[in-house]
Amino acid sequence: MAKSRREKGIEKMNQVLGKGGDIVINKLKEIAPDFGDMIIEFAYGDIYNRPGLDMKSREIASVAALTVMGNVIPQLKVHIQGALNVGCSETEIVEVIMQMSAYGGFPAALNAMFAAKEVFSKNKK
Amino acid sequence: MAKSRREKGIEKMNQVLGKGGDIVINKLKEIAPDFGDMIIEFAYGDIYNRPGLDMKSREIASVAALTVMGNVIPQLKVHIQGALNVGCSETEIVEVIMQMSAYGGFPAALNAMFAAKEVFSKNKK
Amino acid sequence: MAKSRREKGIEKMNQVLGKGGDIVINKLKEIAPDFGDMIIEFAYGDIYNRPGLDMKSREIASVAALTVMGNVIPQLKVHIQGALNVGCSETEIVEVIMQMSAYGGFPAALNAMFAAKEVFSKNKK
Amino acid sequence: MAKSRREKGIEKMNQVLGKGGDIVINKLKEIAPDFGDMIIEFAYGDIYNRPGLDMKSREIASVAALTVMGNVIPQLKVHIQGALNVGCSETEIVEVIMQMSAYGGFPAALNAMFAAKEVFSKNKK
Amino acid sequence: MAKSRREKGIEKMNQVLGKGGDIVINKLKEIAPDFGDMIIEFAYGDIYNRPGLDMKSREIASVAALTVMGNVIPQLKVHIQGALNVGCSETEIVEVIMQMSAYGGFPAALNAMFAAKEVFSKNKK
Amino acid sequence: MAKSRREKGIEKMNQVLGKGGDIVINKLKEIAPDFGDMIIEFAYGDIYNRPGLDMKSREIASVAALTVMGNVIPQLKVHIQGALNVGCSETEIVEVIMQMSAYGGFPAALNAMFAAKEVFSKNKK
Repeated sequence: MAKSRREKGIEKMNQVLGKGGDIVINKLKEIAPDFGDMIIEFAYGDIYNRPGLDMKSREIASVAALTVMGNVIPQLKVHIQGALNVGCSETEIVEVIMQMSAYGGFPAALNAMFAAKEVFSKNKK
Repeated sequence: MAKSRREKGIEKMNQVLGKGGDIVINKLKEIAPDFGDMIIEFAYGDIYNRPGLDMKSREIASVAALTVMGNVIPQLKVHIQGALNVGCSETEIVEVIMQMSAYGGFPAALNAMFAAKEVFSKNKK
Repeated sequence: MAKSRREKGIEKMNQVLGKGGDIVINKLKEIAPDFGDMIIEFAYGDIYNRPGLDMKSREIASVAALTVMGNVIPQLKVHIQGALNVGCSETEIVEVIMQMSAYGGFPAALNAMFAAKEVFSKNKK
Repeated sequence: MAKSRREKGIEKMNQVLGKGGDIVINKLKEIAPDFGDMIIEFAYGDIYNRPGLDMKSREIASVAALTVMGNVIPQLKVHIQGALNVGCSETEIVEVIMQMSAYGGFPAALNAMFAAKEVFSKNKK
Repeated sequence: MAKSRREKGIEKMNQVLGKGGDIVINKLKEIAPDFGDMIIEFAYGDIYNRPGLDMKSREIASVAALTVMGNVIPQLKVHIQGALNVGCSETEIVEVIMQMSAYGGFPAALNAMFAAKEVFSKNKK
Repeated sequence: MAKSRREKGIEKMNQVLGKGGDIVINKLKEIAPDFGDMIIEFAYGDIYNRPGLDMKSREIASVAALTVMGNVIPQLKVHIQGALNVGCSETEIVEVIMQMSAYGGFPAALNAMFAAKEVFSKNKK
């Protein structure tokens, strides 16, 4: 029997983000539970489940985008962990962020690098 | 004998961007030739030449970033072509842009998709 | 029988955007038809169909956001027309854009105002 | 006798922002008191006092814009409170922010939603 | 007798922007004449008339900001001309834009450089 | 004997940023030391060392750009201190930030002003 968008979304979100996804969805429960459902169903159920791009490339794209946006550090951290979860090495993540200095400038890349440092060192504890 | 930053940069830029890079550098010649040199030496000589991230992943990161930035369509087109040049499929590029709708919104992703459409159809002629 | 997300989305998109929505979806057909479906199902089927906010307020919010983003003029024009379609007056749209100068600065507000001028005068023909 | 821009501005700012406006103006006193005056006179005296758009719509526009800008959380909180002050319901504010995910992406909308959660729960104490 | 904000604004705007300012104000006449007045009175009458920063520095700041914003090329061109009008050299403008590559990335700086090239060569005709 | 890009970069960075630069470079040591080198060599060795624009103008441009970007407060603080270090007065910095309200809006300018307040008062201790 075909899985629902929601079931596919939860499965994929857990695979990519680990418990980082649950924390976000739980924080939304009191104020906007439907918004949590949208993230699960649309972002993870629909988009991340599409064939045509491997999961490592998807997370490299996410880390790149969130780095140059510069104003979404909490989500960047979640996806730096996500990138590690789907098989990116710390070096690959550092390289993506460093490369972003050419597109979004040094300040945004610096703040992303410090976010990565925090995620990496948390994992070492 | 070790290649200079400039030599390494030109080689890498040609590999990634094809003639798209030359056009940009030439347009800078009259007004700011040193700025063209910086792009060649820093972006392509230093960054793109670093080991630790394969060229396909680098261009996926670039397309992702330029999509969410939303205001740099000419450079996005150059890097959509660049992504094709280093081995990305049209499908992979379309998937990256589609995924960006979740990070940078639908309008930016839409404009990037139309940019991709233009690049792809130019290649077919 | 309950309408599908797609049916609800098409209905709502037509109500808000008129033919402006169809044009976008059609332009996507060749390159990324699924992306057109996502816009219809997620943006119009899921979000715009939610109760809790009237359609005029939704379009005022869209015009405000697209004005300060500053880099998505084609989508801004579609939603300026959308705002008119759901009952906003030209004056209300002008006021929203003028107010945005305080949040996103004068240059972005100016470009939005010129976009509005274009949409309004097209309607007069 | 006609009120001055300053008098009109203070009155309107108080009506919309309550004490949230005073706090900002006071924080400016030591470093740039004239800048506080500009905000009062231009933003509230000139713009918010204009007829042609009701106060609820103005605050919906502000919340929408500050959500997609993504980098101005303190000001977003002040205007979420402002939206409540001029008669928006919590549901309407949540809907505006949720809708913004389609324009400015999920990360910016998520951070705005958490800002709203903070403002709403502060009011309940 | 003290000049009005409007008189001071027109004088300053003409000094800085030359006919570039008039063109903008005229384009606003049909749709939002009050918005043109705000730009004259607030931006030029109030801000640009303040002592404490010389006019060359003001235009260097404007060119820098409009370059990294990346999405307001028409206004950037007007202020590149403005910078020349108040005594900046072409070299100084080129240097500001080049420096911005470190803050806002190469693509935004490139587009600004091409805008400068257009303004400079227009002046040579 | 000609100084290396690195030597010129360290000298210039120290002149402009004082110990603020070292702190950043040190924070990068563990995660991405090469990225620190790039900032030193490219941003300070190549760009800031160029003739054609005086150091005060360079820092005015940086403060302006970082203000409107709005999402890079730590770097803005470093360059507000940098502006003071190369001879800008507090008044000049306040004026640049105030002027930015016209280009990037009041919220970004407000947050920059509060950053300046912090830097100024730290210097007074």
